[in-house]
Amino acid sequence: MSANADMGSQLHLKFDANGLITAIAVDADNGEVLMVAFMNEAALQKTMQTGKATYWSRSRQKFWVKGEESGHVQQVQQILIDCDQDAVLLKVKQHGAACHNGFRSCFFRAIEPDGTLKQVREQIVNPAAVYASK
Amino acid sequence: MSANADMGSQLHLKFDANGLITAIAVDADNGEVLMVAFMNEAALQKTMQTGKATYWSRSRQKFWVKGEESGHVQQVQQILIDCDQDAVLLKVKQHGAACHNGFRSCFFRAIEPDGTLKQVREQIVNPAAVYASK
Repeated sequence: MSANADMGSQLHLKFDANGLITAIAVDADNGEVLMVAFMNEAALQKTMQTGKATYWSRSRQKFWVKGEESGHVQQVQQILIDCDQDAVLLKVKQHGAACHNGFRSCFFRAIEPDGTLKQVREQIVNPAAVYASK
Repeated sequence: MSANADMGSQLHLKFDANGLITAIAVDADNGEVLMVAFMNEAALQKTMQTGKATYWSRSRQKFWVKGEESGHVQQVQQILIDCDQDAVLLKVKQHGAACHNGFRSCFFRAIEPDGTLKQVREQIVNPAAVYASK
């Protein structure tokens, strides 16, 4: 980690072995973490150029414009970068649900002390309806 | 991604090729994203057992109890998991600064439209003083 990356005013993205950085989307209105995904350099460029959050899908190995199918797009208001420049934080205006399961946030379950999961958020849309015709 | 991992009540962590999941720490009081790091299974277990955020340092290849050197520990109040179980969100009581550069959050710079970085947070501690005797 260079001092320049850490404190400087120049972008020196630190990609992992797969050419990716972590991207966290938070609700611009209340700061709630909505989801976490990955970006390569081109996905970050597209996000900055279009104003719509665009990730790199590791499973599908292609660009993933969030909400392209569901309409639940993320309009990006600000992009922050962390000290060692291997993660970005997107402040977004989230339309609908960030989670494809119909929850506002993908983080809708808590890990209990016994290791089981407890749902702590309510579904806001019916995913079957959203993706029915796709 | 199994339906069970997605919506179920059982923990089925999905580790990457290096045995890691993403871990995002947010301020339990106001939800601000403080930092992002990685955990392996043992680091998550230690975090749950001790109540102190414990990551896996990829650069040093060892456990990293956040704040061990600086005193800026993170007391974990809740752990959430995302739909595909490859990321956890820690709600923490952050003592001092999460960022080793003396900022409350590691995300203290915004990426401007021209690609330069602009500092958008103030330092809250002097890192030279914190780490001086280490």
